[in-house]
Amino acid sequence: MMPVFTRPRLLALGVLSLFGLIAAPANAAVSPETAYVFNTLLFLIGGFLVMWMAAGFAMLEAGFVRTKHAAVICLKNIGLYSIAGLMFFLIGYNLMYLNVDATGGIFGTPIPWGPSETAADETIDVAANGYASASDWFFQMVFVATTASIVSGAVAERVRIGAFFIFVAVLAGVIYPIQGAWEWGGGWLDSQFGFSDFAGSTLVHSTGGWAALAGIILLGARNGRFVNGKPVPMHGSSLPLATLGTFVLWFGWFGFNGASQLALGSAADATAVAQIFANTNMAAAAGVVAAYLASMGLGRGKANLGSVLNGALAGLVAITAEPLTPTIFEAILIGAAGGVIATFGAVLLERLRLDDVVGAIPVHLFAGIWGTLAVPMTNPDATFLGQSVGIIAVGAFVFSLSFALWLTLKFVIGIRLNSDEEAIGGDLSELGHSAYPEFVPETRPAE
Amino acid sequence: MMPVFTRPRLLALGVLSLFGLIAAPANAAVSPETAYVFNTLLFLIGGFLVMWMAAGFAMLEAGFVRTKHAAVICLKNIGLYSIAGLMFFLIGYNLMYLNVDATGGIFGTPIPWGPSETAADETIDVAANGYASASDWFFQMVFVATTASIVSGAVAERVRIGAFFIFVAVLAGVIYPIQGAWEWGGGWLDSQFGFSDFAGSTLVHSTGGWAALAGIILLGARNGRFVNGKPVPMHGSSLPLATLGTFVLWFGWFGFNGASQLALGSAADATAVAQIFANTNMAAAAGVVAAYLASMGLGRGKANLGSVLNGALAGLVAITAEPLTPTIFEAILIGAAGGVIATFGAVLLERLRLDDVVGAIPVHLFAGIWGTLAVPMTNPDATFLGQSVGIIAVGAFVFSLSFALWLTLKFVIGIRLNSDEEAIGGDLSELGHSAYPEFVPETRPAE
Amino acid sequence: MMPVFTRPRLLALGVLSLFGLIAAPANAAVSPETAYVFNTLLFLIGGFLVMWMAAGFAMLEAGFVRTKHAAVICLKNIGLYSIAGLMFFLIGYNLMYLNVDATGGIFGTPIPWGPSETAADETIDVAANGYASASDWFFQMVFVATTASIVSGAVAERVRIGAFFIFVAVLAGVIYPIQGAWEWGGGWLDSQFGFSDFAGSTLVHSTGGWAALAGIILLGARNGRFVNGKPVPMHGSSLPLATLGTFVLWFGWFGFNGASQLALGSAADATAVAQIFANTNMAAAAGVVAAYLASMGLGRGKANLGSVLNGALAGLVAITAEPLTPTIFEAILIGAAGGVIATFGAVLLERLRLDDVVGAIPVHLFAGIWGTLAVPMTNPDATFLGQSVGIIAVGAFVFSLSFALWLTLKFVIGIRLNSDEEAIGGDLSELGHSAYPEFVPETRPAE
Repeated sequence: MMPVFTRPRLLALGVLSLFGLIAAPANAAVSPETAYVFNTLLFLIGGFLVMWMAAGFAMLEAGFVRTKHAAVICLKNIGLYSIAGLMFFLIGYNLMYLNVDATGGIFGTPIPWGPSETAADETIDVAANGYASASDWFFQMVFVATTASIVSGAVAERVRIGAFFIFVAVLAGVIYPIQGAWEWGGGWLDSQFGFSDFAGSTLVHSTGGWAALAGIILLGARNGRFVNGKPVPMHGSSLPLATLGTFVLWFGWFGFNGASQLALGSAADATAVAQIFANTNMAAAAGVVAAYLASMGLGRGKANLGSVLNGALAGLVAITAEPLTPTIFEAILIGAAGGVIATFGAVLLERLRLDDVVGAIPVHLFAGIWGTLAVPMTNPDATFLGQSVGIIAVGAFVFSLSFALWLTLKFVIGIRLNSDEEAIGGDLSELGHSAYPEFVPETRPAE
Repeated sequence: MMPVFTRPRLLALGVLSLFGLIAAPANAAVSPETAYVFNTLLFLIGGFLVMWMAAGFAMLEAGFVRTKHAAVICLKNIGLYSIAGLMFFLIGYNLMYLNVDATGGIFGTPIPWGPSETAADETIDVAANGYASASDWFFQMVFVATTASIVSGAVAERVRIGAFFIFVAVLAGVIYPIQGAWEWGGGWLDSQFGFSDFAGSTLVHSTGGWAALAGIILLGARNGRFVNGKPVPMHGSSLPLATLGTFVLWFGWFGFNGASQLALGSAADATAVAQIFANTNMAAAAGVVAAYLASMGLGRGKANLGSVLNGALAGLVAITAEPLTPTIFEAILIGAAGGVIATFGAVLLERLRLDDVVGAIPVHLFAGIWGTLAVPMTNPDATFLGQSVGIIAVGAFVFSLSFALWLTLKFVIGIRLNSDEEAIGGDLSELGHSAYPEFVPETRPAE
Repeated sequence: MMPVFTRPRLLALGVLSLFGLIAAPANAAVSPETAYVFNTLLFLIGGFLVMWMAAGFAMLEAGFVRTKHAAVICLKNIGLYSIAGLMFFLIGYNLMYLNVDATGGIFGTPIPWGPSETAADETIDVAANGYASASDWFFQMVFVATTASIVSGAVAERVRIGAFFIFVAVLAGVIYPIQGAWEWGGGWLDSQFGFSDFAGSTLVHSTGGWAALAGIILLGARNGRFVNGKPVPMHGSSLPLATLGTFVLWFGWFGFNGASQLALGSAADATAVAQIFANTNMAAAAGVVAAYLASMGLGRGKANLGSVLNGALAGLVAITAEPLTPTIFEAILIGAAGGVIATFGAVLLERLRLDDVVGAIPVHLFAGIWGTLAVPMTNPDATFLGQSVGIIAVGAFVFSLSFALWLTLKFVIGIRLNSDEEAIGGDLSELGHSAYPEFVPETRPAE
């Protein structure tokens, strides 16, 4: 049985263990201070695993773009992780979590997180606070970076660096935290609709997807991507790098979902984290197999590696809304459906002439919606109504703000490379150097 | 549903701590519930580290194959990890661990693992079960994936995807679990011969190696690999990727060997895991240096990077059968011998005109046999007789079943690309796209 | 055989928790054996994260060198990690930690670490020794490997493999341990000057930087790097690999700094580790943004990806001397300054016609000095005088010994490729094969 909300879940689970889910005698339990260390450790391990996902996005995207844009996509990825973290520190974290009640559950207080607080100053009350506050902050921060990472892949090969970084700053500092406050901050979506999103199929992945969708609509497709209404394939430059990126993301997802249990200080919590690991893995595996079969169907017997990689990710996104309550069988079904949805979703986007370079929207938005809707099938505390309200509210908010922001940027500073710049590639036009000067000599800068 | 035990060592170590290896007073010990959390955490950390090895194999193999086969080897690697996990869930785990006694120690009961079990349903009895069952399952599952990974590298550049995936499904669902039941499932090899294989030099690595050997015998060498009886080198396409893969595997091996201690709930266990980490690292380091020197000898003063990378892996494979009882000095010797064996083993295979693309057989089979035979030198509970029985029994079983399976596949659906397909590469012939379309334009699909 | 203590901080923190920083009642505390497991686990997790940094250096350097030297840099990286570990085992660890008092705090006793000790032999006294000795050894060993990794990048593309490996052996076995003994071994620098270097801005990073500086002075610049006194850019061959390497290093740095707390057995320690994680991350993020802006300034509005990657690393190096006492704001400032210093430091080196292929010296030496000097700003126990003494003493010692060693090697066996070898590249001249035979056909060996 799972907590309605994420951060307060901690308390609920503590209560569970008090009332005897655990067979051990009382004097054999985990001491409060030991639990504090376990909980903190979970956040730290989960945090470094999710931080590593930033490398996964970077490699996935570097592999899926063409060589002439590969350096700039690397710069965007390391830059967005940094900017998102700084903005989340400056205003985002407290906008999401601090005194959300005071605004009726709409948003918190946008001040820097713990500005004067260090380990030495902190009074550690292991009973009241079950974990080190910096460990929680670190774990929350890497989530916002993930949201931002989703955007960069979709808008690749034509967005300007500066405009992209400004978008990321607002996304991480304002847009993500406000919708996050509604649910994980204990706001209106959590308290009034019983919306349930364990680790963020909607709050993280769909949010990134909506922001990306607004971007690609306003940017338009890459030059040459659609000719006379027909799509022209633009092959990713390095599928081994894209494969590496996918494995990195899968690996990091154990932290993403597992540490979203938010506690490891009891046998019940440890058991929950273990179940989450198993379910997360099997949903991804099922996503791979389903996307392999689906892409063979679409390709007249020939599978597409890009589709299979995205199938893994879609399986992961789909199970993220509820990785705890499904059985393994159910996790497999949820993940497999995610893989199929992403595969056909990519076809749909192409039909709509929307140019998503890496398939971020089918993976993170479409499979994220599916995963969120699937929660009530295994978690009796969630309802289709509540889930739908959450999906729609978050989607409307994030899409409209993102659209307005991209639009503003478009008119004020411009968001797209001009045709010449796009033709020679973002690497030369925006950085003046290339990613692979010896491999692809035509991308080499003139000396 | 839990197996009665996973690897009998768990019990042995519990007894050790009962009889006072630990100097702390009783009231200062680890509480049962705390131990449960530690044990579960060890499985989870070990599990994600070993999962990451799948990325290591993918990069190692993508780096060692030629560019025209690089996409398909990536697909095989992510696919095999997924299929192996699904099959191990569906039948493998319980075939390996459930009621092995009932068949006289030959095999267990091939039903899905814990089909209706979730964390919420599970009654957590911290005294009877020292860890979350899903954490153990996850850790065991990533081992079977490793076994499957070993095969893909050896048979690369000519095996058909479909046949390969079917082979993996049977290997992970049937072949691996049965031989695993003999030892880690508490079967005949464990109970009657005192065979000892701590983390799987034989059960995992040699098993993968035997399966690979059967494959390359039936597949035959790549076209052009041997001309007029002389070997023609076929250089790996990206040695930096192969290097990355080697580092990933080394990193993941700390989970592979360290978490095979199966417990972290006492000072004795923690000390054991630490010793395993140190020994594992030093065996690999010694494998590197030994292979460097050996390959300089073979190369008239010029070392070969591929040999050095395989030396690291051979050192790791060699120490895997017993990473706990050796001193560091002994670990260095065991690893160094592994590195030399793999280097000369690769020459031997070439003399036999067996075409192992990545050197999987010298590394995983030859060094695995060496490591298994070396156990009695440091572990008085093992005997050369028992080790030999285990090596021969597992080898005969795995090789003959694998041979029969590859042979059946060969006649029923075919296992090898035809000459034209092989010439244009698996990427274009099986997937219709290439791994590096801009870098190696001759592999680019016609539009 | 155990050192009396490793890094005196351990003691200080124990005292802190005794005197009631922790609000929990005594009976709710962490039991000694539980603390032993936590402490050991911290070393093991920290250790595998820092081990992984070896892969980061390998990828960073493989990405920054030109293709014709990419295989040999990979070989150097896996080789140096192995050699450094073996030498640290054979003499380095005890030279750094064993009986340093006996020499008046100058150096310890250069005998192998724990030669006859295994987990089974060890008497575990959880009260006297708070962690498994092998876990501490493993963690210390990966630090020396980091030091050696710093050198390989600076001297790339022209140093001979053999000479480089000999240098590494002496660096890891003698030079690093002696200066380490002064501080972390409890020697004169620690006891008489209150020098403070939490995780090694000076002891690890500057040491690597000084060793590298001596090397590039004696080696001279690559042929063609400076023509008529003007620098000629030599572009790195694969910026995505360099980006991957940077992310790997960032990821591993959580272990580097976090586990340098050396204890996780109390709420105070867990809180400290959490603060270190947050500060480490934010210093790196600030380094990225600062280097991005600085390199845009230098590049007339065009940023340089290489500078940005080095900015991240410089931020990490800068915070390494004191990641615990700064607030997040302070960590951001320290990291940002590091990023700027590395960016302009690279320009300075180029002005001096010093050829540091990957920018190791600006990142590890210059930002390391900065980070060490910044300690007193947030840590009242440190003084500018003490910090300066440490920087100068370590610098003079490491630079002069390194210079003498490189000079000796130069006259005895030669340290530099001849011009023909350099022109065809280290891969073909030293290994006889190339890193990318299909991608860059001109590097392919003649059959």
